[in-house]
Amino acid sequence: MSATAPTAVGPGAVHLSAIGRQMAGPSGLRSIMDDVATTIADGGSATWTNLSVGNPARIPEVTRLWRDALEAVLRDDFEREVGGYGRSRGSTTLVEAVVDHFGRTYGWSLTGEHVVAGPGSQMICFAAAALFCGPSADGTTRRVVLPFQPDYTGYQGLCQHADGIVGIAPRLEPRGAHRFGYAMDVDAVAAVEDIGMMLVSSPGNPTGRAVTDAEVDALERIAEERQVPLILDHAYGAPFPRVGETHRPPREHPWVIHCFSASKAGMPGERTGIAIGDPRLTTPIASFFANAVLHAPQLGQGALAHVLRSGELDRVARDVIAPHYGAQRAVAEQCLDTLLPADVRWRSHTGAGMFSWLWFDEPWFDDLELYGRMKRENVFVVPGRHFFVDPSEHDHARRCVRLSLSAEPSVLRRGIEVLARVVGEMRDAFEGGGRCD
Amino acid sequence: MSATAPTAVGPGAVHLSAIGRQMAGPSGLRSIMDDVATTIADGGSATWTNLSVGNPARIPEVTRLWRDALEAVLRDDFEREVGGYGRSRGSTTLVEAVVDHFGRTYGWSLTGEHVVAGPGSQMICFAAAALFCGPSADGTTRRVVLPFQPDYTGYQGLCQHADGIVGIAPRLEPRGAHRFGYAMDVDAVAAVEDIGMMLVSSPGNPTGRAVTDAEVDALERIAEERQVPLILDHAYGAPFPRVGETHRPPREHPWVIHCFSASKAGMPGERTGIAIGDPRLTTPIASFFANAVLHAPQLGQGALAHVLRSGELDRVARDVIAPHYGAQRAVAEQCLDTLLPADVRWRSHTGAGMFSWLWFDEPWFDDLELYGRMKRENVFVVPGRHFFVDPSEHDHARRCVRLSLSAEPSVLRRGIEVLARVVGEMRDAFEGGGRCD
Repeated sequence: MSATAPTAVGPGAVHLSAIGRQMAGPSGLRSIMDDVATTIADGGSATWTNLSVGNPARIPEVTRLWRDALEAVLRDDFEREVGGYGRSRGSTTLVEAVVDHFGRTYGWSLTGEHVVAGPGSQMICFAAAALFCGPSADGTTRRVVLPFQPDYTGYQGLCQHADGIVGIAPRLEPRGAHRFGYAMDVDAVAAVEDIGMMLVSSPGNPTGRAVTDAEVDALERIAEERQVPLILDHAYGAPFPRVGETHRPPREHPWVIHCFSASKAGMPGERTGIAIGDPRLTTPIASFFANAVLHAPQLGQGALAHVLRSGELDRVARDVIAPHYGAQRAVAEQCLDTLLPADVRWRSHTGAGMFSWLWFDEPWFDDLELYGRMKRENVFVVPGRHFFVDPSEHDHARRCVRLSLSAEPSVLRRGIEVLARVVGEMRDAFEGGGRCD
Repeated sequence: MSATAPTAVGPGAVHLSAIGRQMAGPSGLRSIMDDVATTIADGGSATWTNLSVGNPARIPEVTRLWRDALEAVLRDDFEREVGGYGRSRGSTTLVEAVVDHFGRTYGWSLTGEHVVAGPGSQMICFAAAALFCGPSADGTTRRVVLPFQPDYTGYQGLCQHADGIVGIAPRLEPRGAHRFGYAMDVDAVAAVEDIGMMLVSSPGNPTGRAVTDAEVDALERIAEERQVPLILDHAYGAPFPRVGETHRPPREHPWVIHCFSASKAGMPGERTGIAIGDPRLTTPIASFFANAVLHAPQLGQGALAHVLRSGELDRVARDVIAPHYGAQRAVAEQCLDTLLPADVRWRSHTGAGMFSWLWFDEPWFDDLELYGRMKRENVFVVPGRHFFVDPSEHDHARRCVRLSLSAEPSVLRRGIEVLARVVGEMRDAFEGGGRCD
């Protein structure tokens, strides 16, 4: 974390607060993303195969959905939505559309007070972490608990306090020759003494795994007992974008904040997320926004309201987005099954989602070494360790890698060809008496 | 601040962290804005005269400027700007446009590392306050210093720590019969021992006053001596929107962060602000954004880049926006001069800007009483105290009121008619042996 210390360049070192040191530090994933951007920019005419991105796939019907909606807002509501400031809780148009949509879809009885729109789910979770975790007036300190790892790497940057996030290791469940799953270690979650809030993506990044009904029940019980919020982040789930596993529909609970996002449904650039929960949980988030950012951008909110009301988002998620990623996954799995060396113990996470999550159960496998070797072949993937708060605790974290399924099938195939070749080289180097870790 | 304590409604009290208590609390202005919104919503068919808003005026040529730019981005750059995630530092398109524009306009030699785009200036300042102020690893605590009050009320919500902001009282300078100005008390600024950063809007909200060249020099000296950032917030200034006083052009300085915003130039809804400064100041802000909000919304950034490159924003600011507010101010001053009771000691702040800032130098004047009386007449204004961090320190704060100049001239005139009548009633009540404060 040397980059977080005061820097001595220029006319004088810049003093950073304790929060500043925490928040100005480079996260592991950010350094990878910077590396990807810099390498590609400096790479001249080289052809890059980038399977590291979290961007949604470019699907013409999805582009049309959002472009039409944004154009409609610009045409019909410019003065109200763009030319004036909005509400910190979210535009009335969007909040009403959300109340109506989730009432119709799940039978929820919401008021506008149950909803808060934010400049993306990331900022919703950031506000929640600031509000519900960290040092308190009573002298205690509470932490953000990620009940299930691997999980979204961006969660690791949410807490402004050092050591403010704890992640729980999963139970591994091998299935067949080349598949595996995880289970949540609910007992380990319950054993954390200083929970301020719990946060889990479901379905998850990178696995596409949805928290099971029994796990949701258990987390809700812990939330009730500790009187702390549980945030279920549905960024990949139902009712949109429907990329990933789903079980029982989400349900109202006095300690649960449900987060939904337009990003993976095709509009990541506009930072449009919503949180739904009891007003005593959502109102502090709206107040935080009023102080920190005033309100979420309005065009994205207007567009989301538009496609919720018309039913087009439901239709496109169900008929276009979900099948698209299903087909991409089939391509990836077929390539993996046929191309990876037969004598390497590898497994891909079962299920669905926007990524392939691979586990190489071999002593010679190291995710950063794979990253470096694949980069030399002009292919980018994401090392597995970035999806764990403290990868040093988990040997498993360094045996994994994430591939994005957003790329074109031919790009995906080329990337997996290189992966298979590089994995073979790593094995050969080990067996040839080379390095061992 | 009772609303910030754990609330006992629902199934259980919600525990808030120390930061949570600070950030979930209602600010004075927010409670006024909620009151305005609720009253208007509940008011049925009543006609309201709202001179409380900070929204920019609705000017057809300005609407056209931004709508055309946003439509161009949607049409030409949808995939890049909306369909994918952006950079935490800001879109390459906008950063390049800013480097070029400020190079041409002020002769600045910027690189992309000098610039960071944020989801509005508010969030830029929030990030800076978190990075540069508050408790440090060395055990010291630093505060946000507002060198000049009255200043933008939103600054008061920026700091996540209790008592983290200090505002310096101005020197009053009466001019003629009914005008006045302020001077910055630079010695009082220099006397603050625990400065973490300084922040001032220039030209300012509510006064339209620009920090003088001598005051800028003095603040830069303090910044150098203390090695802390000085943020100059040009939200109302040059090169856009040109609403308010200007002196010497802004200049590069190793401790100065210049903030610019598209809001008052007509696009507040999209939350598009930029900060320009030495990379050792701007890079921590970009890192903070990466962790807290990922990046600023892309459509607004694309539109701002578009109108910077075309020169249209410069033209519209100079030829349309600046003259518009000049004309509005002339209407307001003419109404004030002719309508306010001749025997009341009132003064309006000299200069320019988006607001009329009035000082009633009378022992019977109270800004909240005026607010309540005018609300009963269906007119909204903003009490002066909200522009001071600790209004209890300043008798002057409670003798002031802010009127927005964004309304149509007829609306402005009606509001000032009511103001004049209510001020006369307050004086009569006092002289009739009524209340005295």
